Amino acid sequence: MTKVGVVLSGCGFLDGSEIHEATLTLFFLDRAGAEIIKMAPDIDQMDVIDHLSSQAVEGETRKVLTESARIARGEIKRMEEIKADDLDALIFPGGYGAAKNLSDFAVKGVDCTVNPEVERLVKEMHQAKKPLGFLCIAPVIAAKVLATFSPQLTVGNAKEELTKSAAEAIEKMGAKHIACEVAEIAVDEENKIISAPAYMIGPTISKVGLGIERLVNKVLELASG
Amino acid sequence: MTKVGVVLSGCGFLDGSEIHEATLTLFFLDRAGAEIIKMAPDIDQMDVIDHLSSQAVEGETRKVLTESARIARGEIKRMEEIKADDLDALIFPGGYGAAKNLSDFAVKGVDCTVNPEVERLVKEMHQAKKPLGFLCIAPVIAAKVLATFSPQLTVGNAKEELTKSAAEAIEKMGAKHIACEVAEIAVDEENKIISAPAYMIGPTISKVGLGIERLVNKVLELASG
Repeated sequence: MTKVGVVLSGCGFLDGSEIHEATLTLFFLDRAGAEIIKMAPDIDQMDVIDHLSSQAVEGETRKVLTESARIARGEIKRMEEIKADDLDALIFPGGYGAAKNLSDFAVKGVDCTVNPEVERLVKEMHQAKKPLGFLCIAPVIAAKVLATFSPQLTVGNAKEELTKSAAEAIEKMGAKHIACEVAEIAVDEENKIISAPAYMIGPTISKVGLGIERLVNKVLELASG
Repeated sequence: MTKVGVVLSGCGFLDGSEIHEATLTLFFLDRAGAEIIKMAPDIDQMDVIDHLSSQAVEGETRKVLTESARIARGEIKRMEEIKADDLDALIFPGGYGAAKNLSDFAVKGVDCTVNPEVERLVKEMHQAKKPLGFLCIAPVIAAKVLATFSPQLTVGNAKEELTKSAAEAIEKMGAKHIACEVAEIAVDEENKIISAPAYMIGPTISKVGLGIERLVNKVLELASG
């Protein structure tokens, strides 16, 4: 049974994991027979966003691990407990949580830093030549942590302002951007890194699902290959 | 384009909508080309549960509509705005939110009451002979609101204590229980009510997905038929 880690970053696309991306990642992994190890860093969220108004909620704090547990139905590990030895592959769903909690890319852009536990596990996986998957905006983490390996990554088709500026940012950090539509994936065979645009393009859940299904299958193929 | 309402009850299975059930409902509806109208009542949650410890969080309040907006990516209507005329079908994902927020079945059992807006819309849909879908524990709502029509419903296989007691409860409320395994659905052709056990049985997301996919397809078939 292939053991695949899934890194969550909260629960809701504006301040945590994108729920559809995270859920569909779990769905396609489970359907393919993988053993799933859900995890999140045990830290406070950068902020709490009211998803009805899209406004920040002043004075409220939520924890990344506790909110991620909603998506994981309570079965979730602290990221610090997990080593590359425990896994055959590791996938990061997107959502602003990847750019606010797992890194601070949403605030600092190309000068961002990555959560130390996230950075450690990504480096361990890469060194062990185990595949890594990144959805949506999460490839900024690979661009930052693995910059010296010039990873090939996608954050979309680089046509609209959102994906264009994200593509420019990951190139500035040292990655090579591969333009992809929503159902396509970028495959960096050498670094064993797969990425897919998901809600960087959207627009709807079933379109996003096409790319996630393909990413999950490619990650599992590389994990067993 | 078939217009299908999806009623959310928060975000997280212990105090709101079961996230996987809600997300997969949206996924299969979107893949089938349906137009989806997400909605929730604008009320406080009965409680807030820490999904890591499964314990209630004292002194914290969250709103059903605002938390549901996390699953809906902000595109969600107040339930009171929606009439049966706006819809061709209506689906209720499960999670304790169906038994704590949309009704108080989790506390009062067979003596439960149903949120007035939920009760109104379910009755309107039934009267208009438009199909209704219920996942997991959500069939208790149909059992209560449509008791006089003796709806045929499933809340699982009635083998374990959880599904057995839920099955007994809906029969006491006036429904007929149909034992189903996780990939099966109960079809009440006369009342146009479809139900599926989902996480009442589980155990994993892809198994739950089998029943949800079947329920969505049957609801769409009855909506167009």
